[in-house]
Amino acid sequence: MPIAIDAMGGDHAPAEIVRGAVAAARELSLPLTLTGEPARLREELRRLNVLDSLVTIEPASQTVAMDESPTAALRQKPDSSIAVAARLVAQGHAEAVVSAGNSGAAMAEAVTKLGMAARAERPAIASLLPSKRGRVVVLDVGANVDCKPRHLLDFARMGSVYAQRVLGIQRPRVGLLSIGEEPAKGNELTKAAYPLLAGSGLDFAGNIEGTDVFSGAVDVVVCDGFIGNVALKLGEGFAEIFGDMLREELSRRWSARIGAWIARGALCRFRKRLDYAEYGGALLLGVRGVCVIAHGRSNARAVSRAICLAYQSTRHDVVAGLEESLASAPPEAAEATQGR
Amino acid sequence: MPIAIDAMGGDHAPAEIVRGAVAAARELSLPLTLTGEPARLREELRRLNVLDSLVTIEPASQTVAMDESPTAALRQKPDSSIAVAARLVAQGHAEAVVSAGNSGAAMAEAVTKLGMAARAERPAIASLLPSKRGRVVVLDVGANVDCKPRHLLDFARMGSVYAQRVLGIQRPRVGLLSIGEEPAKGNELTKAAYPLLAGSGLDFAGNIEGTDVFSGAVDVVVCDGFIGNVALKLGEGFAEIFGDMLREELSRRWSARIGAWIARGALCRFRKRLDYAEYGGALLLGVRGVCVIAHGRSNARAVSRAICLAYQSTRHDVVAGLEESLASAPPEAAEATQGR
Repeated sequence: MPIAIDAMGGDHAPAEIVRGAVAAARELSLPLTLTGEPARLREELRRLNVLDSLVTIEPASQTVAMDESPTAALRQKPDSSIAVAARLVAQGHAEAVVSAGNSGAAMAEAVTKLGMAARAERPAIASLLPSKRGRVVVLDVGANVDCKPRHLLDFARMGSVYAQRVLGIQRPRVGLLSIGEEPAKGNELTKAAYPLLAGSGLDFAGNIEGTDVFSGAVDVVVCDGFIGNVALKLGEGFAEIFGDMLREELSRRWSARIGAWIARGALCRFRKRLDYAEYGGALLLGVRGVCVIAHGRSNARAVSRAICLAYQSTRHDVVAGLEESLASAPPEAAEATQGR
Repeated sequence: MPIAIDAMGGDHAPAEIVRGAVAAARELSLPLTLTGEPARLREELRRLNVLDSLVTIEPASQTVAMDESPTAALRQKPDSSIAVAARLVAQGHAEAVVSAGNSGAAMAEAVTKLGMAARAERPAIASLLPSKRGRVVVLDVGANVDCKPRHLLDFARMGSVYAQRVLGIQRPRVGLLSIGEEPAKGNELTKAAYPLLAGSGLDFAGNIEGTDVFSGAVDVVVCDGFIGNVALKLGEGFAEIFGDMLREELSRRWSARIGAWIARGALCRFRKRLDYAEYGGALLLGVRGVCVIAHGRSNARAVSRAICLAYQSTRHDVVAGLEESLASAPPEAAEATQGR
């Protein structure tokens, strides 16, 4: 079954989306369905000399702008490229949806068309970031701005399943993002979430600080969507300013320029590792289906990485794992949860 | 008048504190008073061959541990090195205090001994971070975990004075750290703080996202102490992992190693720019006196940078500027503030 790609969503849509989709389809020998204006998409495919039958087009007459209100789009644009892509999954014609468009709209479409996974109360966006020991799952990075403690517990369960299934970590270590290691350190939300996580049966490592998000100390970092989103974007900002500083220093003197030229392969690999495009998409957890939300700025590389993630998530059946995990939550945790 | 240095506070106290203090005293021709165990401090000074009268010792018989409860320390250790340092300022024997020790204890001592500045309701810790256009003031980075909207307004006023006096920016642009540029984007706190800032008379640039903290778009970034602290430590974590990645790539092949050797001066300058020690201390704003809180891990370099910051803050009379600014808040802002 194909993966559905919202070909009209994103700052560089549809050109970069189509390029990324074509690259992913070829790399993975994976059928893809692009949703959007057929004429424009056909033109993009023609430009790329795509003749193979791996990439098909599903017409969608509307497009949701990046700054449009998600709820308004949901009501007023039933035939938008993201709505059509989500519908394909809901109706069993596609096995996952990928969008680099308006992320609020993508989330709203996924929630309404795919429905929530059993026992999941809120969806969460989970980002896969680099760490010293490989990768770390950070969630929520933007689906829920104001959270209750029990939501953080759900995020922890969902993030653990993600780490198990996609990263292959048997018993993922979960950290609660806070401002000190002691249980009593943090804001009202994290202090109330701490005992829930401690009694959850998960491998809870306690509070972790910002310095430890990338240290490899934990596999899953749990936080509310406001702080997660700020953190994610801070990371992008840091990567940019560090890249600039390095470029500046390496171009200041002749000797540095010569050294940089000799080491250009290594520096190029380093820049690639700083590139958000390599970390592609974020997985929307908690809905009954695979939905990958890619960065609005996505270039072709980022789009193809996001499609890869959607493919892996379907192959390892993250959704089924998640429903199992939420259903088998130990009773004491369920009770504590009900109390809040 | 000397600056008082809590010589027993910090992971590497007293050796690194004394080394940093001596370096700063010589660089700035500035008298300093070290507080702590006289015998140990004399030994450190002897080791550094310090004979000049710029550095004096004020005995303090107690030390607050890094993980000690600040309120307990305040009650039980009236003769701690940080208490003695704060008292020197309060009694007019020193013009600023610098501590790399338990930051909660430093804050508690500063608040109780120096008192709050007129009209300041809560203190805030302001960090000076690198940006594409120079420096950016970020506050609060840890003094107030759960904030009310009016506190963010006070932070904005205090941060603006800091940017004016220490960075020399006539009319600093202030951004509210959030997750989208529109006023309606954000969590409950930022959405309520937005109109207060918009009506404050400050040069309010609206919401800024994580990506823009370092872009130079604003001179002052306002946020609650929980998110500010997480952000600050994330920055440290990022710098570390980026440094590691660069080192890894540059040591993988011979050509890269040779290139790195030729460009070693530039790479060294780059690493220095990533080093937290260069950004030394954070200024505690809102108290009636200059108090600089340095990183617990501070080495001598970080300590001397923190002392520099204390020196600049006293020279430019940040405290007087702050009291003026809070006192002259336009009436409409004061009204809006009272409503909350």
